Amino acid sequence: MLHAEDIGVGIARAIRSAVSGRPGGVYLDLPAKLFSQTMEAAAGKRSLIKVVDAAPRQLPATESVQRALALLKTAKRPLILLGKGAAYAQVDADIRALVEKTGIPYLPMSMAKGLLPDNHVQSASAARSYVLAEADVVMLVGARLNWLLSHGKGKTWGQEKGAKQFIQIDIAPTEIDSNVAIAAPLIGDIGSCVSALVAGLGANWAKPPAEWTSAINDRKDKNLTKMSATLALNPSPMSFHSALNVIRNVVKARPDVIVVNEGANTLDFARSIVDMYEPRKRLDVGTWGIMGIGMGFSIGAAVVTGKPVIAIEGDSAFGFSGMEVETICRYNLPVCVIVFNNNGIYRGIDVNPTGGKDVAPTVFVKNARYDKMMEAFGGVGVHATTPEELQKGIDKALASGRPTLINAVIDETAGTESGRITSLNPTSAAKKK
Amino acid sequence: MLHAEDIGVGIARAIRSAVSGRPGGVYLDLPAKLFSQTMEAAAGKRSLIKVVDAAPRQLPATESVQRALALLKTAKRPLILLGKGAAYAQVDADIRALVEKTGIPYLPMSMAKGLLPDNHVQSASAARSYVLAEADVVMLVGARLNWLLSHGKGKTWGQEKGAKQFIQIDIAPTEIDSNVAIAAPLIGDIGSCVSALVAGLGANWAKPPAEWTSAINDRKDKNLTKMSATLALNPSPMSFHSALNVIRNVVKARPDVIVVNEGANTLDFARSIVDMYEPRKRLDVGTWGIMGIGMGFSIGAAVVTGKPVIAIEGDSAFGFSGMEVETICRYNLPVCVIVFNNNGIYRGIDVNPTGGKDVAPTVFVKNARYDKMMEAFGGVGVHATTPEELQKGIDKALASGRPTLINAVIDETAGTESGRITSLNPTSAAKKK
Amino acid sequence: MLHAEDIGVGIARAIRSAVSGRPGGVYLDLPAKLFSQTMEAAAGKRSLIKVVDAAPRQLPATESVQRALALLKTAKRPLILLGKGAAYAQVDADIRALVEKTGIPYLPMSMAKGLLPDNHVQSASAARSYVLAEADVVMLVGARLNWLLSHGKGKTWGQEKGAKQFIQIDIAPTEIDSNVAIAAPLIGDIGSCVSALVAGLGANWAKPPAEWTSAINDRKDKNLTKMSATLALNPSPMSFHSALNVIRNVVKARPDVIVVNEGANTLDFARSIVDMYEPRKRLDVGTWGIMGIGMGFSIGAAVVTGKPVIAIEGDSAFGFSGMEVETICRYNLPVCVIVFNNNGIYRGIDVNPTGGKDVAPTVFVKNARYDKMMEAFGGVGVHATTPEELQKGIDKALASGRPTLINAVIDETAGTESGRITSLNPTSAAKKK
Amino acid sequence: MLHAEDIGVGIARAIRSAVSGRPGGVYLDLPAKLFSQTMEAAAGKRSLIKVVDAAPRQLPATESVQRALALLKTAKRPLILLGKGAAYAQVDADIRALVEKTGIPYLPMSMAKGLLPDNHVQSASAARSYVLAEADVVMLVGARLNWLLSHGKGKTWGQEKGAKQFIQIDIAPTEIDSNVAIAAPLIGDIGSCVSALVAGLGANWAKPPAEWTSAINDRKDKNLTKMSATLALNPSPMSFHSALNVIRNVVKARPDVIVVNEGANTLDFARSIVDMYEPRKRLDVGTWGIMGIGMGFSIGAAVVTGKPVIAIEGDSAFGFSGMEVETICRYNLPVCVIVFNNNGIYRGIDVNPTGGKDVAPTVFVKNARYDKMMEAFGGVGVHATTPEELQKGIDKALASGRPTLINAVIDETAGTESGRITSLNPTSAAKKK
Repeated sequence: MLHAEDIGVGIARAIRSAVSGRPGGVYLDLPAKLFSQTMEAAAGKRSLIKVVDAAPRQLPATESVQRALALLKTAKRPLILLGKGAAYAQVDADIRALVEKTGIPYLPMSMAKGLLPDNHVQSASAARSYVLAEADVVMLVGARLNWLLSHGKGKTWGQEKGAKQFIQIDIAPTEIDSNVAIAAPLIGDIGSCVSALVAGLGANWAKPPAEWTSAINDRKDKNLTKMSATLALNPSPMSFHSALNVIRNVVKARPDVIVVNEGANTLDFARSIVDMYEPRKRLDVGTWGIMGIGMGFSIGAAVVTGKPVIAIEGDSAFGFSGMEVETICRYNLPVCVIVFNNNGIYRGIDVNPTGGKDVAPTVFVKNARYDKMMEAFGGVGVHATTPEELQKGIDKALASGRPTLINAVIDETAGTESGRITSLNPTSAAKKK
Repeated sequence: MLHAEDIGVGIARAIRSAVSGRPGGVYLDLPAKLFSQTMEAAAGKRSLIKVVDAAPRQLPATESVQRALALLKTAKRPLILLGKGAAYAQVDADIRALVEKTGIPYLPMSMAKGLLPDNHVQSASAARSYVLAEADVVMLVGARLNWLLSHGKGKTWGQEKGAKQFIQIDIAPTEIDSNVAIAAPLIGDIGSCVSALVAGLGANWAKPPAEWTSAINDRKDKNLTKMSATLALNPSPMSFHSALNVIRNVVKARPDVIVVNEGANTLDFARSIVDMYEPRKRLDVGTWGIMGIGMGFSIGAAVVTGKPVIAIEGDSAFGFSGMEVETICRYNLPVCVIVFNNNGIYRGIDVNPTGGKDVAPTVFVKNARYDKMMEAFGGVGVHATTPEELQKGIDKALASGRPTLINAVIDETAGTESGRITSLNPTSAAKKK
Repeated sequence: MLHAEDIGVGIARAIRSAVSGRPGGVYLDLPAKLFSQTMEAAAGKRSLIKVVDAAPRQLPATESVQRALALLKTAKRPLILLGKGAAYAQVDADIRALVEKTGIPYLPMSMAKGLLPDNHVQSASAARSYVLAEADVVMLVGARLNWLLSHGKGKTWGQEKGAKQFIQIDIAPTEIDSNVAIAAPLIGDIGSCVSALVAGLGANWAKPPAEWTSAINDRKDKNLTKMSATLALNPSPMSFHSALNVIRNVVKARPDVIVVNEGANTLDFARSIVDMYEPRKRLDVGTWGIMGIGMGFSIGAAVVTGKPVIAIEGDSAFGFSGMEVETICRYNLPVCVIVFNNNGIYRGIDVNPTGGKDVAPTVFVKNARYDKMMEAFGGVGVHATTPEELQKGIDKALASGRPTLINAVIDETAGTESGRITSLNPTSAAKKK
Repeated sequence: MLHAEDIGVGIARAIRSAVSGRPGGVYLDLPAKLFSQTMEAAAGKRSLIKVVDAAPRQLPATESVQRALALLKTAKRPLILLGKGAAYAQVDADIRALVEKTGIPYLPMSMAKGLLPDNHVQSASAARSYVLAEADVVMLVGARLNWLLSHGKGKTWGQEKGAKQFIQIDIAPTEIDSNVAIAAPLIGDIGSCVSALVAGLGANWAKPPAEWTSAINDRKDKNLTKMSATLALNPSPMSFHSALNVIRNVVKARPDVIVVNEGANTLDFARSIVDMYEPRKRLDVGTWGIMGIGMGFSIGAAVVTGKPVIAIEGDSAFGFSGMEVETICRYNLPVCVIVFNNNGIYRGIDVNPTGGKDVAPTVFVKNARYDKMMEAFGGVGVHATTPEELQKGIDKALASGRPTLINAVIDETAGTESGRITSLNPTSAAKKK
C-alpha cells in the first residue's frame, strides 16, 4: 500500500482476512511514505469500502454431511473434540444441540472450555486419557490434531489398539490430513456444518452404547473424587491446588469473569482445575506454547468487554511482560493479576549445576513481592499466603474493579518440569522407558 | 518433512493444497536427509493416506445468492466476466446455462476462452472496450480485478460515468474487495455458486434491455468486419495477422488442438485473433506476464493429454527456453512450435541508441532459422514465408504427430512496444496525453 | 552446524566474526538436533580449535597514510571525529597522540566520549554545530557518516559553504563512500592506522591556524558559560538539567563508574551534560536508536567488569525492560538505576487528541513509584525529588554496591519531542521553514 | 536507493563491494521509482563520486608473517595450494617468486591453473592425491578448505597419519578456521602477504628435503607416463581423452586463448588434461558446482578481452543455456563452443529403470547435431567424429574468429557418474566400503 487512496482497500482486505476463513490476527503495513500524503476529503470518502458480508457462511456439501453421519453411526466408542474454532464460531446453541442430541461424550480443548459448562454430564475431561486412547471414531469440531493432541498418533491415542477414524469439521480444506488421514472431512464454517449435522441426525439417532458411557463415567467419578480430596487439602505454604481451588470457586460463582492463564505448571494445573461455564471466557496461549501474552490478553479483554479479568500467571510467565501493570493502572482496568510465586521456573529449589556461588538460572529472587509492582503504579497490591487471603484479595478486586495484583505465595518445592515438554524431548523420553 | 514416515502426509497435503480452495502449483520439499532413510514395507503402506474428497464442494449461503441475483436484476447494462477460475472449475454446462438463461453479454479472460465457443452470439469480445466502459453491473466468475483488468478502475472502466457495481464469485473470501468494493460477494466453488444462481433465476427472468445488447452487437459487427478485412490481406513478408489467420482457421477446423501462446505482440494478437471453441484448450502466461513458459506448457500438455499442441511463440519469448525442443524430440511429442520471427524484440528494425557498431539490444540475428534447431534434434523443421507454407507445415505436423518447428517469417517492421506495458509506465502514459 | 563434531569450528568462527574486522554481536545457532548427540571425549577434545590471532592487526598501505596526511596538511579548518570504533580498538594512547600532536580540535561520538577526557582543551563538543558546519577537512576515526551525523550532508555540514573533504579510517573498505565521497580512505585496524599517521606527522607538523582554534574556543566559552548557569539552577520539581548535574558531578568524582544511558530527552541531555573521563565507560544505543537496552547493558557491564554501573533511564525507555530489575537483584549486581520520571513519553502533560476520557497515549500513570519495583525484589528503592536526595541515593548505592533504583521526579512539563526525530520527518521539517 | 541523487553513492559502493576485500559479483537494485525521476544536470554531476583506491592494499602484520615463516620452516613435507584468490590478485610475479624461492611443490586449484605454467617442474598436479595425503604443512594462498578440498579433513588429507598444520593467506579474517584449525593465519591482500613472505625468506632459506620432492617426482613421472599413453590412443568414436588431447595441444600452441569449461565428466577430465600456461585464462564453475554458466562466461570473456574463447561443454551442461548461441552470433564473438556429445547425462546408454517405453531420464536424443543450432543463427557448425576433424574445426575457428560450434561425437559408453558427487552421498559412500 503506497498511496493514501488505497487505505480503504487495505482496511477492507484486513477485515476480510481477520474474520473470513480461518480467523486471526492481521498485520496491515502502513509505510512511512503514506503519512505525509494528502487527499481531497471527497476522494477520501469515495475510497472507503463498505465491507459486505465479511465472514460469509460457507456451507458444507450434502455428501460430506452424509459421509460424516454415516461414519459416526458405525462408532462403538465415539468422541467429540471441541477446539477453539468451535468457540470462535459463536454458534453455541448449535454445538450444544450436536453434543446433547447425539449423546456423545466430548472433550473441550483449552479455549473451548465453557462452550458447554465444564460440569456438563457428557464432558469427558475428567477421563481425558481414557477417551483419547479408547475412542474409535473422533469428531474434531474446529480442532486440529497438532502437538497439543500428540498429532493424532502414538500411545496417547491408543495406537497399539488399531487406528481410529476421524471426522474433521474445518473451514480450511488444507487443514485436512495434516497429520493423520481424515476419513470424513466436512468443509465449511462451523455453524453451517454443525447445524447440517444436527438436521441430519433424524428422529431415531441412537445414543452411544452404554458400555462406553458408563466406562467413562466410572473413570470420571474416580478421578473427580481424587481431585476433590487434593483440592480440599490446605497445606502451608499453599500448593498449586489449594490456591487454584479458590479461583475455581470464584469462577463458579462469577461465570462471567474472563480468565487469562499462562505459565508452565500454573497453566497445566489451572486448565484442569478451574472449570469454565460460559463460552469464550478463557484465554491462553493456545497452540503456540509461548509466554508473555498474559498482560496483553488481559488488557485487550478488559478494554473490549468491560468485564472483570482474572489473570492466572506463573511467576516466570509474568516476568515476560510484567511491566504492563503500568498500562493496566494507567487506564484503570478491572484486571486482577494473580502471580503464582514459587520462587522460580518450575520450582524455586534448584541448585546451580556448575556449583558456583550464583543461584541456579531457574531460581528467582526469593520471596519477591510482585504486589509492590502494582502499588508502584497506584494499583492495589495484595500479599497472600493462605487461601483465605487469596479469596479476600480476589473478592475485593472484583467488588472494586480496581487494578489489583495478588502475590500468591506457593510452596517453592511444588512444581515440576512441564510434562508436555519432556515428552517432546526424545532423549528424556528414551530415558524414561 | 524430516522422516520417511511423513511422506504420506506430505503428499496428501500437497494434493489438497493443489486442488482445494484456489487451486495451483504446490512445492513439496523433500530434504536430502530423507533420501537415505529406510522404513519397513508394512509401515510404509500404513503411512500412505487415501485422500478423501480432495476438492470438496463449498456451497454459497442462500443469502449471498439472493443478494447477487437481486443486484443483477437491477442492472440496465449487465456484463459477465469469465476468468480462468471458471475454466478450472470444469462445470462447463453450468456456466453455459448461466450465460444463456440470463442472456447477459459475456467476456472471457484469456484462459477462459472456449468455455463457450468464441463465436457465441453473446460473446462481447469484439466489443471489449465498449462493454467494460459502459456496463453498470459486472459479474466476475472466477476472475479477479487485477492488472489485466486495470484493477477495476479508471478510464477502461468508464469511471467518469459513475461507479459500477460488482458481483464476484470466488472460492476465497480474501479475494473480495481486493481492488474495488464488491457489492455482492458469492463465496463457494464456482460450480456450486453458478448452479445456485441458475436455480434462482426462476421462470420469468428478464433478459437484458435490447438497447444494451443491440448497441453491443453494432460494435461487434463493425469491429469484426474490420478484422476480417485485415485478416484477408496477404502481404509479403507475412504480417502477424496473415500468419495468425492461418492458425485461426486450423483451430476452427481442429478445435481439440491445445494452443499454447506467449510473447508480446504475438501474445496480444493471437489472443484476439485465434478463436477457441472448447474449454481449457488455451494455455498462456495468465496473470504473471512473464516469458519462458511456452515450451514447458507444451511438453506438459502433450504428455498429460496426448493431444496435439500448437505453440504460438514470439521469437523473444521462444529464446527463454527454446533449448527444450530437445525434450520435445526426445519424447517424440506431438508439438508444433511456430516461432513468429520478426528479427527482434517487438520488431527487428531498432537502431542502437548509443550509436555504436553493435546492433540495438532489442534486435536479434537477422534471418535466424529456428527450424534448424528442431532439425538438430531429429524433429521436423519448416521455413515458412507465406501463409500457404505455414498452413502446409501445420497440416503436416498435425497429420504426422511429429515434433515440428515452423520458422514463420514476419515483416520485421510489424511489431510495436506492447501497449499494456506502456500504460503501466507513468512517464510514458503522461507523455501520451 | 548439524554435528557435535562441528561445535569447535562453530565457536572458533563465532569468535573470529565477533572480534575481527568490524566487531560486533554474533548469533551462533545450535539446532535442537545437536542436543541429543554424543561423542567420544577424545574426539571432543580434538574438535576444539585454538583460535590463533582472532583479531589480527590489519596494516594500512603506506600510500593511503601519505594520502591522508597530505590532505590533512592542506586543511585550514581541520576536525577529528572519534567514533565508537576508535573506542573499541583499545588504542587509547595512540588516539591521544594523534589528537595532541596534530593539535586538531576533535568531537567524540556518544560512545567515544572519555577516550580523551571530555574536558580536554581540544574537545569541540561545546561548539559541535559550529565545527561541523565550518570544518574543511574532517578525519573520521572509526566513525561513520550515518544518520547520527546527518549522512555527512546538508545544513548541519554547512553544505552551502562548499563541499568538505573527508579522511576516513575504517577496517572495512566497503564502509567508504557510504553516503558521501571519501577523498582519503585509510583501511586497516584503528590502532595500526592511527599509529602510522602519528609516525608520519614528522617533527615539523604545523598545528591548525589560530583563527580556527580561537573561533572554536570563543564558541565553547560562550556555550559552557550558558550551560553552567542552567546547571546551577535548582528548580522544584527537578529539571533534566538539575538532576543530570548531580550525576555529572558523581562521574567526575568517580570516573571509573560505567554509565548506561537510554531514552529520548534523557539520552540527549545526558549525553551532553554528563562528561566522561575514561574510555569505554559510556554505553548507549549507538546507531540503532531503539529503546529497551538499558537493563541488559547494565547487567552485562556489571557482570563482566565488576564495576559499579549507573543507568540513566528515561521512564519510557525503562518501561521496555524494567522487569529486569529482578535479574539485577537475583545476582546482587552493583547497578544503580535512575529513572527520570516526568510522567510520560517526552513529557507528562499531553492531552488526549481525540478528546475521550482516557489519558493521552503518551502519558503514564502520574506519580509512579518506580523505586517500589526494586523493593519488590529486595533491592533498595529511593524516591528523590531534589538534587540532594538524588545525590544521597547515588552515594549510598556506590558505597554499598547494592541494587538500587532511584525514582527521580522530574518536572512533567520539561521534555520535548526529540529534535533528531523531527528532522527526519520531511513534513515537520518543511513546516518549520 | 530511492532518489536519483543517490545513484552516485550506490555505484561507488557497488564498485567497492565488487573489488575490495573478497571480490565478487554485486547486485545493485535500481527500483522502478527511480526511472521516472529527474534531476538538474549540475546536481547530477555533483552526485557522482570519484572512487579513491577502490581495492586498497591491506598489509599483513609483521608478527603474522613471522608466524607463517616459522611454521613453514619446520615442515618436512611442505605444500603450497594456490586458489582462485591467488589468480584474482593479479600479482603473478610475486606468486612465482614465492613458489620458486621456497622450492616447495604446489597444487593449483582449478582457476589458479596457469598462474604458473602447468608444466612447471614444481607442480604437483600429477601427484595430487599423494601430496594432499602426505604433506605436513600446507600453505593456502587465496584458497579455502571447502568441499572441493574435502574440507581439509578425512582420508584425502591422510587424517589417519596425524593432523596437518595450515598456513592460510586470505583477505577476510572470518575465513580462518572455517573447517579446520589454522595454525598460522595471514590476513591481508594476497599481493602484500606474498611479497612480505618472500621478503622474509632471507638468503639462506632451505629448500624442502629431497626425499619429499623426489617422492613426488616419482609419482608424477608414473602418472604422466600413464596419461600420455591414454592420450595417444585413437579410439572410434572419440573418447573424452582423445578429444581433450586435441584441445590440450591447441592451448599449448595458443596459450592466450581463454578456456571456459563446464559439465560433469567433461569438467573433471578437461581440468586435468588441458594444461594452462597463462594466468586467468581458465573459467569454470568454481565452488558452486552448478551448470549453465558456460555460455555467459564465454560471452563475457570475449566481450571484455577481445580474445578467442574455447568453451569445452558437456552436452548436459550446454543444454542449460545453449540458446545463448544466438547472442554469440548476434555480436559475432570469437567463441568456439565444443559440445562433448555422448548422448546423455554422464553417458548415453542408461536404460529407463521403470521399464516404460520412454528413454531413461538421463539419456538425450541420440545423435543430436548441436552444430545445426549455431548454423540456425548464421554461425559455423562443425560435426566432428575424429580428432582430426575436431582439430580442423578449432583451427578454422581460431583463424577466422567466427562464432563456431563443434559437435564432438564422444563414445556414448564413456562417461561415469561424477566421482566427487558420489563421495558426498553418505549411502553410496557407505556401500563402497
